[in-house]
Amino acid sequence: MFKDTFQRYINMVEQTLDQLPWKQNLINESMRYSLIGGGKRIRPVLALASAETVGGKPEAILQAAVALELIHTYSLIHDDLPAMDNDDYRRGRLSNHKVFGEAQAILAGDALLTYAFELLGNLDHAQPERLLRVITEVAMAAGKDGMVGGQVLDLAGEGRDLTLNEIEEIHKAKTGAILTVSARLGGILGGGSEDEIDALTEYAQSLGLAFQIKDDILDIVGDSETLGKPAGSDLRQGKSTYVSLLGLEGASKQLHDQIIKAQAALEPFADKGLFLKELAFYIEERKH
Amino acid sequence: MFKDTFQRYINMVEQTLDQLPWKQNLINESMRYSLIGGGKRIRPVLALASAETVGGKPEAILQAAVALELIHTYSLIHDDLPAMDNDDYRRGRLSNHKVFGEAQAILAGDALLTYAFELLGNLDHAQPERLLRVITEVAMAAGKDGMVGGQVLDLAGEGRDLTLNEIEEIHKAKTGAILTVSARLGGILGGGSEDEIDALTEYAQSLGLAFQIKDDILDIVGDSETLGKPAGSDLRQGKSTYVSLLGLEGASKQLHDQIIKAQAALEPFADKGLFLKELAFYIEERKH
Repeated sequence: MFKDTFQRYINMVEQTLDQLPWKQNLINESMRYSLIGGGKRIRPVLALASAETVGGKPEAILQAAVALELIHTYSLIHDDLPAMDNDDYRRGRLSNHKVFGEAQAILAGDALLTYAFELLGNLDHAQPERLLRVITEVAMAAGKDGMVGGQVLDLAGEGRDLTLNEIEEIHKAKTGAILTVSARLGGILGGGSEDEIDALTEYAQSLGLAFQIKDDILDIVGDSETLGKPAGSDLRQGKSTYVSLLGLEGASKQLHDQIIKAQAALEPFADKGLFLKELAFYIEERKH
Repeated sequence: MFKDTFQRYINMVEQTLDQLPWKQNLINESMRYSLIGGGKRIRPVLALASAETVGGKPEAILQAAVALELIHTYSLIHDDLPAMDNDDYRRGRLSNHKVFGEAQAILAGDALLTYAFELLGNLDHAQPERLLRVITEVAMAAGKDGMVGGQVLDLAGEGRDLTLNEIEEIHKAKTGAILTVSARLGGILGGGSEDEIDALTEYAQSLGLAFQIKDDILDIVGDSETLGKPAGSDLRQGKSTYVSLLGLEGASKQLHDQIIKAQAALEPFADKGLFLKELAFYIEERKH
């Protein structure tokens, strides 16, 4: 049941991404390379599921949901650049700049980010006020006070021992903000009440933290092939993580606490919250 | 009269940029460094003037007008990167990555682009439908089929002899699209009719071309100090330009033709088009 629904969302996302009006030229090719090359699609799935949880139709917000995946993908392309994390592999394939060169990779990222706002701006049949609210919130979550700001903090923290509070602040901005806005986007465009949007927010904040703790755990216990990237890279880079600070057991407990918290936030939805509840379990159990 | 109005617009732009809620941290500092460091502010001025030309209040669209300058500034920061044009100077000062480093410069550009859509998304008192139209059009003008696409073509054309048609295609995408959408943004948010928006579009398309031809001419006849960047760099890089293809006299004639064409497009506005008419002269005569 969960798996069926999950697969239905994934199929909608993949089909929408594939059927965007791609042209036959270098910039389109380089954007597609990173976008179509797999990935967990957590952000658009979270948006679609949130819309359905508040009684909206996921089909109606597909274009907005995939915009979130475009933003996520642009951030990966830029993060992988030599000037940043200098990663040669991503999702088990060569990273964008290793295939297209640095200049083109920078531009592919820029174009993906820009295209996301084009897709948000002309979503058909959406209430204009709701759409504007979503555009503003997505920009805030992706920008200087959200994802980009988090990457700045992350780079600044490299080679330094961080406290648990510092790590949490980095992750809240770097990955949490976009995950949270994904759920909110679904809630807002799906026509949810403010109380429902608040509940989705609380859920997604805990889910985002859980997601990151799990990432840190997988870096230690995962194998490179399943992960699609070298395991143990945090350790080699001397990065402070939940595991380096809490140990594997402590981090696993934290992870579980956040999952419980996420699920508790869904109480107002009763049975309608079932998919999101199981999505939280999926995050806790995932292997990559 | 022209100069007074121009200065009034410039003051509005500078004040708005300065009074954005900047925080005291690295990402804000690096964004501000490039944004506040001068520049001609042609795009926001074009937007404000276009709004006023169709009978709107420029004060009401300031936040949207400066969003255009944020997008322009982000594109300069990324264009200057070592992987792209590798320029150490911009507007007479060290370029962003020479001051903050490459990683931070990439992120400052990303954050400026993202912030632009935040500012567009929550412009107060705008008609939601108009604002969504503007957001979509700005994204299209800035993205893969506009500015970013133009930069891709530009990089691909380096070291190759281009035809006049190829040069025009590059410039239409790289600089023309954003200039055109600047005028349209003012026309749309200012409440202009579709005919008026069309007239502004035609005006801005010619103005954009004129702007680029003038850039090519200044690269030959300008001096580095006035330009704030090394003169003669096109020549040294073996770049095809309007001057290399048409000669100085031919390029100057083309420039003048475009100015006349731009001004002709303003006829429907009669006296109300006076400022934009003189702005075209200003573009033709500018020294940097």
